[in-house]
Amino acid sequence: MAYTLADVQQLDRHDPLADYRQRFSLPDGVIYLDGNSLGALPRSVRARMDEVVATQWGEGLIRSWNTHDWIDLPGRVGDRIGRLIGAGPGTVTVADSTSVNLFKALGAALRLRQDRRVILLEAGDFPTDAYIASGLAELMGKGHEVRLVAADELAAALGPEVAVLLATEVNYRTGARLEMAGLTAAAHAVGALTIWDLCHSAGAFPVDLGAADADFAVGCGYKYLNGGPGAPAFIYAAARHHAGMRQPLTGWLGHAAPFSFAADYSPAEGIARMRAGTPPILSMQALDAALDAFEGVDLRAVKAKADRLFDLFTGEVAGLGLGLATPTDPGRRGTQVSLRHPEAYAVMQALIGRGVVGDFREPDILRFGLTPLYLRFEDVWNAARVLCEIIATSAWDRPEFRRRAKVV
Amino acid sequence: MAYTLADVQQLDRHDPLADYRQRFSLPDGVIYLDGNSLGALPRSVRARMDEVVATQWGEGLIRSWNTHDWIDLPGRVGDRIGRLIGAGPGTVTVADSTSVNLFKALGAALRLRQDRRVILLEAGDFPTDAYIASGLAELMGKGHEVRLVAADELAAALGPEVAVLLATEVNYRTGARLEMAGLTAAAHAVGALTIWDLCHSAGAFPVDLGAADADFAVGCGYKYLNGGPGAPAFIYAAARHHAGMRQPLTGWLGHAAPFSFAADYSPAEGIARMRAGTPPILSMQALDAALDAFEGVDLRAVKAKADRLFDLFTGEVAGLGLGLATPTDPGRRGTQVSLRHPEAYAVMQALIGRGVVGDFREPDILRFGLTPLYLRFEDVWNAARVLCEIIATSAWDRPEFRRRAKVV
Repeated sequence: MAYTLADVQQLDRHDPLADYRQRFSLPDGVIYLDGNSLGALPRSVRARMDEVVATQWGEGLIRSWNTHDWIDLPGRVGDRIGRLIGAGPGTVTVADSTSVNLFKALGAALRLRQDRRVILLEAGDFPTDAYIASGLAELMGKGHEVRLVAADELAAALGPEVAVLLATEVNYRTGARLEMAGLTAAAHAVGALTIWDLCHSAGAFPVDLGAADADFAVGCGYKYLNGGPGAPAFIYAAARHHAGMRQPLTGWLGHAAPFSFAADYSPAEGIARMRAGTPPILSMQALDAALDAFEGVDLRAVKAKADRLFDLFTGEVAGLGLGLATPTDPGRRGTQVSLRHPEAYAVMQALIGRGVVGDFREPDILRFGLTPLYLRFEDVWNAARVLCEIIATSAWDRPEFRRRAKVV
Repeated sequence: MAYTLADVQQLDRHDPLADYRQRFSLPDGVIYLDGNSLGALPRSVRARMDEVVATQWGEGLIRSWNTHDWIDLPGRVGDRIGRLIGAGPGTVTVADSTSVNLFKALGAALRLRQDRRVILLEAGDFPTDAYIASGLAELMGKGHEVRLVAADELAAALGPEVAVLLATEVNYRTGARLEMAGLTAAAHAVGALTIWDLCHSAGAFPVDLGAADADFAVGCGYKYLNGGPGAPAFIYAAARHHAGMRQPLTGWLGHAAPFSFAADYSPAEGIARMRAGTPPILSMQALDAALDAFEGVDLRAVKAKADRLFDLFTGEVAGLGLGLATPTDPGRRGTQVSLRHPEAYAVMQALIGRGVVGDFREPDILRFGLTPLYLRFEDVWNAARVLCEIIATSAWDRPEFRRRAKVV
């Protein structure tokens, strides 16, 4: 170990982001390196939820759709997320899940490129993106091809047959980050549209959809945005597409006048046409309250601290001989560390048993999320120390840490 | 007024369902006749939500997907709803919104009837059903026709060209109830499949999907099931369809092995293949807690009390000369009263101003939901009394009750 406890405590004392940790409610005895699966609980959520349940729902009942403006909540929360991802007001709405939003964005994009048949994705991305693309292609029955290529071949694979590049900015397994602006420009150069999946980007580091000239984007509310388990997702469309875009999930709350109960569907103006059914207000209120944790936060500083945590962690475990799956160039990665170990599942179980919570990802990845708003240098140093002990003593090699036959 | 206050208080004293009202938290000064838009708050919800937020999320963090079995929550809550609608274990899952579930059910049904091109609906149903059907038909581009006919012409409209009858059991405006078993049999006789929209049925009266031999069904969690604003919806598929059905929203949580992150989509066994993305756990936990209010409840007794409330209310307002849009035959209606008045919007505003909360529905409908678990005879009698006063004194004819130019 290169650092001492005193060293890292010194780093924490001089950390300009240190106070943000007070915005979160964190359990004792746990070092939580899984905020990229489920973000920690912001303190603002608990009181909000009780107020929403007891007062807005319990007392206000149906009237709260107006008096507490539930009806515009998806757009209001969307605008708050927009400020974290370089999206202007009125270009983001919260709605549904990431998977369902991918379907809507891809449906809209393919309708804008009806003469093309290829949907280009990175092989090895989080699989729901390809699943959704395949499901949509099969439903449309027009011979669309879901073409999967390696990350470093995406640019070369862009050609006149490509309708849409559907790319996740940060790979969920490796943490490698694609170059959004460059790939978007390359896609546009061949006449293709882009859909960016920001599940491992939004809230982790500065994203600038506007500067990248992105067409569509989707992302998740429950990872770095800390919106709670299964928090509603978001969807972005560049303003230039609003008038022409049509998405296929034409539910009543995407209608121009939902309460006119008209016989024919007429899409709402702007991003609101990306809505479908009635949204889960309780979960959306939790996400809204959670976003308070980002008030006043500079995401450049968040990424800078994440990079220092990355260096600390990878430096401390460098002697273990584990493969590093994440790029060392800070500009080429998000804010996670992915290490390879042939018995990664058992190692992660042993870590969790010691209170260090990360993720195992098939087939051999130990995944650690770095969330600077609530992680201290001391936490990351301690996690590295525990990992070193587990590897050094082969503490993972016990029956209770072995995988069961079928992982669910 | 035919009844006196003493009369209706006597009815409440002898009401076998009277104690269930204690299961709800109700605001003072309000007579709530809008439980068919947003159900009242069950007392079980508030503590559950706080426990889920503070303990399951805040303390358990990602581990709660296993330790609190969030992963199987959609099926567990689905089974609880199944018991209210005559659906066996493993045939209902909670997921998404009603609109999105309609898309999935219709996509699956059309795939099972690929040689047919007509989707039959009731004209004047809640419009999201036809919107979704049109959106799906347009996306598929195979010439499907969304055919809307009057309720009493549905049976005659069933022919060999009909792929699916998509019917809402209880009409949201009139409260008229279709004959589910008979229409399902008629659909099957011509080789068509059925999708039943139970938004105004589930939790209101006994539904028996099994006895009706229904193929698919969807419904809403936030009306009679009291699951909270925008509560997740549910979807049912008869077990006989499970092996063969494929739905188009092929998100990762409908995969047979979501955590294997396989490249190709392979649908889960059973109703779980109707899932798409990560579900909103907070909203779903509220729905689960809300269903405690139905424990030990006999829905036959609920319908019987709703019918007595219907007779009381319509009898008390009979002298006003308002048109009754709801059928008088208890077997032909759900549990609402819909009255017509040319200035229904203003009348409803005046009612709400007096603490009697119902709905206005275009163009001339005053809609009152009868929810016997938390409504007393005295409440309904008082609501009728206020309506009589408002009509007798033309108290609705004031500037503040007039419609604004654009209703949102």
